[in-house]
Amino acid sequence: MRGFLIGRFQPFHEGHQTMVERIAPEVDELVLGIGSADQSHTMRNPFTPGERIMMITKAVSKLDLTTYAVPIEDLNRNAVWVSHVQSMSPHFDVAYSNNPLVVRLFEEAGVEVRSTPMIRREELEGSEVRDRMCRDENWESLVPDAVVEVIDEIDGANRLRQVSDSDANGA
Amino acid sequence: MRGFLIGRFQPFHEGHQTMVERIAPEVDELVLGIGSADQSHTMRNPFTPGERIMMITKAVSKLDLTTYAVPIEDLNRNAVWVSHVQSMSPHFDVAYSNNPLVVRLFEEAGVEVRSTPMIRREELEGSEVRDRMCRDENWESLVPDAVVEVIDEIDGANRLRQVSDSDANGA
Amino acid sequence: MRGFLIGRFQPFHEGHQTMVERIAPEVDELVLGIGSADQSHTMRNPFTPGERIMMITKAVSKLDLTTYAVPIEDLNRNAVWVSHVQSMSPHFDVAYSNNPLVVRLFEEAGVEVRSTPMIRREELEGSEVRDRMCRDENWESLVPDAVVEVIDEIDGANRLRQVSDSDANGA
Amino acid sequence: MRGFLIGRFQPFHEGHQTMVERIAPEVDELVLGIGSADQSHTMRNPFTPGERIMMITKAVSKLDLTTYAVPIEDLNRNAVWVSHVQSMSPHFDVAYSNNPLVVRLFEEAGVEVRSTPMIRREELEGSEVRDRMCRDENWESLVPDAVVEVIDEIDGANRLRQVSDSDANGA
Amino acid sequence: MRGFLIGRFQPFHEGHQTMVERIAPEVDELVLGIGSADQSHTMRNPFTPGERIMMITKAVSKLDLTTYAVPIEDLNRNAVWVSHVQSMSPHFDVAYSNNPLVVRLFEEAGVEVRSTPMIRREELEGSEVRDRMCRDENWESLVPDAVVEVIDEIDGANRLRQVSDSDANGA
Amino acid sequence: MRGFLIGRFQPFHEGHQTMVERIAPEVDELVLGIGSADQSHTMRNPFTPGERIMMITKAVSKLDLTTYAVPIEDLNRNAVWVSHVQSMSPHFDVAYSNNPLVVRLFEEAGVEVRSTPMIRREELEGSEVRDRMCRDENWESLVPDAVVEVIDEIDGANRLRQVSDSDANGA
Repeated sequence: MRGFLIGRFQPFHEGHQTMVERIAPEVDELVLGIGSADQSHTMRNPFTPGERIMMITKAVSKLDLTTYAVPIEDLNRNAVWVSHVQSMSPHFDVAYSNNPLVVRLFEEAGVEVRSTPMIRREELEGSEVRDRMCRDENWESLVPDAVVEVIDEIDGANRLRQVSDSDANGA
Repeated sequence: MRGFLIGRFQPFHEGHQTMVERIAPEVDELVLGIGSADQSHTMRNPFTPGERIMMITKAVSKLDLTTYAVPIEDLNRNAVWVSHVQSMSPHFDVAYSNNPLVVRLFEEAGVEVRSTPMIRREELEGSEVRDRMCRDENWESLVPDAVVEVIDEIDGANRLRQVSDSDANGA
Repeated sequence: MRGFLIGRFQPFHEGHQTMVERIAPEVDELVLGIGSADQSHTMRNPFTPGERIMMITKAVSKLDLTTYAVPIEDLNRNAVWVSHVQSMSPHFDVAYSNNPLVVRLFEEAGVEVRSTPMIRREELEGSEVRDRMCRDENWESLVPDAVVEVIDEIDGANRLRQVSDSDANGA
Repeated sequence: MRGFLIGRFQPFHEGHQTMVERIAPEVDELVLGIGSADQSHTMRNPFTPGERIMMITKAVSKLDLTTYAVPIEDLNRNAVWVSHVQSMSPHFDVAYSNNPLVVRLFEEAGVEVRSTPMIRREELEGSEVRDRMCRDENWESLVPDAVVEVIDEIDGANRLRQVSDSDANGA
Repeated sequence: MRGFLIGRFQPFHEGHQTMVERIAPEVDELVLGIGSADQSHTMRNPFTPGERIMMITKAVSKLDLTTYAVPIEDLNRNAVWVSHVQSMSPHFDVAYSNNPLVVRLFEEAGVEVRSTPMIRREELEGSEVRDRMCRDENWESLVPDAVVEVIDEIDGANRLRQVSDSDANGA
Repeated sequence: MRGFLIGRFQPFHEGHQTMVERIAPEVDELVLGIGSADQSHTMRNPFTPGERIMMITKAVSKLDLTTYAVPIEDLNRNAVWVSHVQSMSPHFDVAYSNNPLVVRLFEEAGVEVRSTPMIRREELEGSEVRDRMCRDENWESLVPDAVVEVIDEIDGANRLRQVSDSDANGA
């Protein structure tokens, strides 16, 4: 059985890691759908899809679970979003989400949805990690070691700090 | 003479119905342009274009007036919006609107615009209907019977209630 | 029961009219999906979506059947095409098509498909009508009277003749 | 040596004029990139790209400097924004900007960036000019004479006043 | 009076130069609309919009005529093409074209169109210039000196030769 | 060192497998970029991006090489294609391609390119595999066993056979 878990993974942190570990016993394979894949270099979405693919792949490589990291670009058309996800992803039998819109869209399309009890923690942690990067505080303890390496390699914390001063492209 | 009336119709309610009835004596045919047609499953735009086409067609079918329900997708380019509308719609001689931007765009394109005195009530009612759906209060009295049937058939009030808890796609 | 019939309707002709009449006894309501809705002013797609909505609405108005004329813009992503159609259209129970790709896409999405035996004639007639318009021959006998009126009103045959000399925008 | 300066130029005002004059001695030619080119008829972006091209071309024509006014449409994908700019613009050796995001994007792409100390004044002035237009106060003193002429010719202040009452397309 | 001339200018050659010189006495200012602006690095469209802006600006700079070089991206929606052009360009009173589709679109929008008798030569010359570049023959005699310089600076003939071996992106 | 190899992988076949094996000794990690990711259900591009991700991941899983399968949607703007690829992919040091356009685009962007001598065989084999599927001949011998399983699971050969009869969406 194959599961699907959507997130923005900005960045992939310990909350995600724990969630994947809890889902692992329920599935044979797990697709990690990288939402808002077309966004990067903003306070809310600092990392490119390629950078997030690398974080996820490195972080979950030691788990005894076949995983796929699949970028999902925003379509801004909720009515076709499930089809879009299904075409970008290997076929999955169950979707994991606590987001009410995501749950509703999968349910209307007849896809089984299971809740991920940790989603609140997950949401908070993403924002907390980014805030700490901006303030140059200890964010490293909140993400897996493999992700720290990726972020350091791409000078990620500095990028976040720099773009957090902007509010718009151009002048 | 053919008229054009733009709205989001989320949903089509009694305020719209009254507006159409008042415009009816001035025109031979009336096009109802369904704005933000690509949006659905959000608090502000819960219903798909197809669902809104059905609401409108059912609600105005008893009027002695030839009507067309035409979805108009957002382009996010005001400068070509009038051409976009004109290509999607049967040719019209006069546009009805109180929205200052819409009025300006039609005027710059040389299209006659007439005001719809009830637009304020219309705007308020759309929001009121959606709020009542969310709170599970009596929204049915604010929309035509034919629209109640459509919304019930698609489980519309529950959809609105569910997505009103979300603020973003994914996690 | 509601049916769905896709076509480009460039223009709506007697073959379409016959097809609708044959489908009519099988359904309560029929949606006519106007494919390639964003295309116009070319040899293959001379008429705008608005013009085609008008042709269809006028031509089928005398049938004892509730119909909807719904523009369907090309997405160029086959994998989400069915969802796109379903969101633009009132809900339908069965799709009518003989196009192998359309049949496959609906089948993969679990939608019942019925064949329309006249599709070949339909395809040929659309091209025949346009060719006659270009050569200024008798095209009027191939389309319903209501459609002749619409095409005359928009100077349609001249448009087709003129654009048939072009091969590309600009120079 | 060719420089590149990005702005929205809504409208081109004295702050921009001064900035161009200060950059002039450092470069042989200067490209003025018109950001958010696809936006118009809003409070924040009242003027079309064509109108802004005309303002800029007229205003800088007396300078002893070859200039290019190049519209840059928003892509909403920061990761390809520099390539997009580079393809739309004549080749440039140095970019002028104080916007932290713009600076970061150019730096990651290996493009030399120089700061424009007046950018804060520039930002404030654009907003001030538009506010004065809305309140029908003296905005003319804040923009070059050539720009006043262009805005008057297109009835620009009235447009801004009118759209400032709107908050959304349609109703 | 301001005129508008659309072309792809791949590259700007002597035929274009002659056309501009013939139009010059009829207008005060001339906009050169660069069609298919989003295309580059193909046999038919080798040069980027920025490169074409530079060619045009250099080539016409000695004429006693105010000119604007304005990129026009393809929309693939003929019905809104004129609005798109009008928003990207300074306002113009007359459009110059011999392309039947372009003529038709402008006429339907109520814009005066004048023919450019040299359009056939222009079309042929663009293709001839590109063929000579591919075969490493004498293309320089067909384009203005200023354009030769631009093409040499960007290694343009080699680019064309190289991409002419491709038929598709990827493998 | 990380390499990047672009292909459409319709489907991933023995030629691709051999190519990956030959590249393996030169790199530490290899990104397989899935071109034309938005295309599916056509004769030339029968499989969705999700299906191709699964094929590739299964086929290369036994190699002693870290690989990434990354969908790359077509942009139809060659000038930003390299940036697009770089943002979607983990950072790479060298790109492998024999396609002259791809080589040119990477070279203009300053990316090292190495040729893949087998590209001709690869191109031919993709087309050969699809032709055999259509004719119901032995295609299985041309693709890795893991890919045969994926294609069987999704009823892929039948899909290809069915869509090969179509030439266009709708009628």
